[in-house]
Order: sequence, then C-alpha cells, then structure tokens
Amino acid sequence: MIGLIRVFTANDNEVLQSHGKIIEEQHGIPILSKSIPDQPLGIYDDESERIAVPKIVDLGVQMEREGCRAIIISCAADPAIRELRSRVSIPVIGGGSSAAHVARALGLPVGVMGITEGVPPVMRDILGDLISGYLRPEGVTNTTDLLTEEGRGKALEAAKTLIGQGAKAIVFACTGLSTIGFAETLRKELKVPVIDTVESEGFMAANYYKQAGAI
Amino acid sequence: MIGLIRVFTANDNEVLQSHGKIIEEQHGIPILSKSIPDQPLGIYDDESERIAVPKIVDLGVQMEREGCRAIIISCAADPAIRELRSRVSIPVIGGGSSAAHVARALGLPVGVMGITEGVPPVMRDILGDLISGYLRPEGVTNTTDLLTEEGRGKALEAAKTLIGQGAKAIVFACTGLSTIGFAETLRKELKVPVIDTVESEGFMAANYYKQAGAI
Repeated sequence: MIGLIRVFTANDNEVLQSHGKIIEEQHGIPILSKSIPDQPLGIYDDESERIAVPKIVDLGVQMEREGCRAIIISCAADPAIRELRSRVSIPVIGGGSSAAHVARALGLPVGVMGITEGVPPVMRDILGDLISGYLRPEGVTNTTDLLTEEGRGKALEAAKTLIGQGAKAIVFACTGLSTIGFAETLRKELKVPVIDTVESEGFMAANYYKQAGAI
Repeated sequence: MIGLIRVFTANDNEVLQSHGKIIEEQHGIPILSKSIPDQPLGIYDDESERIAVPKIVDLGVQMEREGCRAIIISCAADPAIRELRSRVSIPVIGGGSSAAHVARALGLPVGVMGITEGVPPVMRDILGDLISGYLRPEGVTNTTDLLTEEGRGKALEAAKTLIGQGAKAIVFACTGLSTIGFAETLRKELKVPVIDTVESEGFMAANYYKQAGAI
C-alpha cells in the first residue's frame, strides 16, 4: 500500500480520493489517501505552509506505522518533504519534484503551468535552465477556476503561448490540472507531451512499489 | 519505436539486444538497438569518449529520421547526451541521469556501485548529498568480471558494505550490473531497494512512449 497525503482538509470523499484514484487506475497499485486536519483552504502562503508541516509529518509517520511502503505528498510544492523524510525510513515522494525529475530525464525545454505566482522553488531548483517559460492562466488563481469552460480556455491559451516561447513539453506545477484531466486535452489538441504532477508522483511510486514486495 | 544506442561496437546480436530486451520485457514497448562502429572496447577514458561522441550523435540523428519517438543512450555516463539533444527534437534519455533522477525522486540515501574509479559526473551532479558512498567491487574493472562467481560475490560484498555505511538503497552506475540481473540478487538477498540503470532508462522511455501515440 502507498500512502497519499492531500495538503488541505477534504470534507468530500470523492475529492479526497481523486489523486489516488488516478494512480490506482494507471498503475493498479493500492493507495491510502488521507488529508490534513483543520485546513480547508490548504496551503496558500508561508504561514499556512508553516502550520501544515507538522500535520503532514504526523500523517506520514502514522502511514508508515500502518504499513505503507512509500508516501506521496501530493502537491507541486512538496511541502514538508524534508521534515517527513527525516522522520520515516520509507521513500517520501513529492508531486513537484517527481514531475521535475521526469522532465529532466527527458531533457526537452519545458513550459511550466500553474496557478501560483511562479514555479514552486523545489521544481525550479531541479528544472533550472530547462524552463523556457512559466504561465498562470489568466484569471485562474485557484483550482476551481479551472473547472469552468472559460478557465479551461484560458489554460489552453497559456499552453499555446508557452509553446510559442519555445517549450517542447508542458510541465504541470499544480495538481488541479491533473484532477481535471488537462494533460489529455493538451496532448490531443496541441500534440504536445505533458508531464503531469499526479501522473509523475504515481509513476515514481508504482515503480518503487513493484520491488517493494521483494524487499 | 524507441531507439537505443550501445556505446561500444557489438559484434554479437545477443549482446547488442540485451538492454533492449530487458526494456521490451518489462514494458512491452518496441526497441531498436544499434551500436557505434569501430569501438569494440567502448568508452574507457577521455579520448575514447571524445571519439565516440560524433558516432553517438550520428546514430541518434539517423534513429530520429527512421521514426524513433525517443532515444536512449544506454550508459551510466550519458556520453554525448548534450550534443545529441542539440541535434534532434525528440527526447534523449541517458541511463545514468535516469537512474539518478529516480533515486532523487525517492529521496533515500544511496550507495552507488559501478566499475569505474568514481561516480560518473552526470550522476554525481544529480545525486549530490544523497550519496552515502561509492564502491567498485574488488577486482572488478570491466563488465565481464561480473560474470564470474567470484565477481558476483565481490559485488554482493560491496553492496553490503554500502548498506553498512548508511545506504538505504543501491544505485547502479554501470549497465553491466543490469545485464547480469544483479538487482534481483540484491533485492532477494539483502532486502534492499535497487535503482538499476537499464530499468530506469526503460522506465523513463516507456512513460514517455505511452503518450507519444497521442501527440
């Protein structure tokens, strides 16, 4: 079993399970999803991240005790990854770093898309000069904005602009783009490779999980 | 189809196909393997690498023309990767960098094993402070040394030493360890996760290839 941590408080079970469901469907591995308590708005600034860190660590420690073979922190910013790694002996996989490592291994110049001001530092540190541009779709500041027809249209426009700037692949720096299945839209409509946050963390976890049975 | 470049001159078809066969079996994707001309001893110092670079680039350019969707340079040192990336528009995946990126995404302290003096620079740059140690099995200086019972025994000893030094996973910095299936030995006998060079390059290529049909 792989533990998956959502870094906001999910009151709806479908929302809680949405990332885990994508990974289970793509790789056929069992996922246990949990969300941190008392943060319905999740992480949106330094203070909300500071408060979230011990909650993420507590959930991760508990998941290791419950028998998880690896833990995913399912967020493009990899919050608390260093702190949790120092507390458990199993692999801790971050969404942002996984996507960035997959992109680096392919070596194509990438346009990064997200809903925050800039590329999350953990992704910027890994991607470095591979980044040909970063864009937040116009008017999109939270993941629910992506659910409207207008939001999707603006996101498609942003991806086109990034390709015009020289990107040969699009990297998501937001798991909300994974939840709405936006990678498939870009692959079909723009014929461009996409490195998706949830797909990448799932791919790293599944690859590890294949050998976890033997060790 | 994925192109796979062997960085020595393979006169035996079974040897030529050995890495591609591992990837085809693990991922069910078609691999076209080719080896560089006139270098039966492959790359073993700066001069032999310098001579190999244009040959690797030529093979890669030819593979893109023949319809390959991505190219693997199947060697832990990623020779000519920068040069080839500047000449083709498809992803170029290196064995060493793929293994290092997989290890980084998991975040466990790693012991690196290879048959050269030290960790290949491309892997050292990515792994950085994650490396808890590097070892070349005693008396092993080329991949054929690994084929003997004594060579395997020394390699197993080296892995045990790396774990004793604090490694929580073993990373291979030599495709010869992949060819002899040494990852399975370590997983079974030492119960340790292994990040294998050929497995990692195949895993990156297969993940990309899944979407190549749609783009």
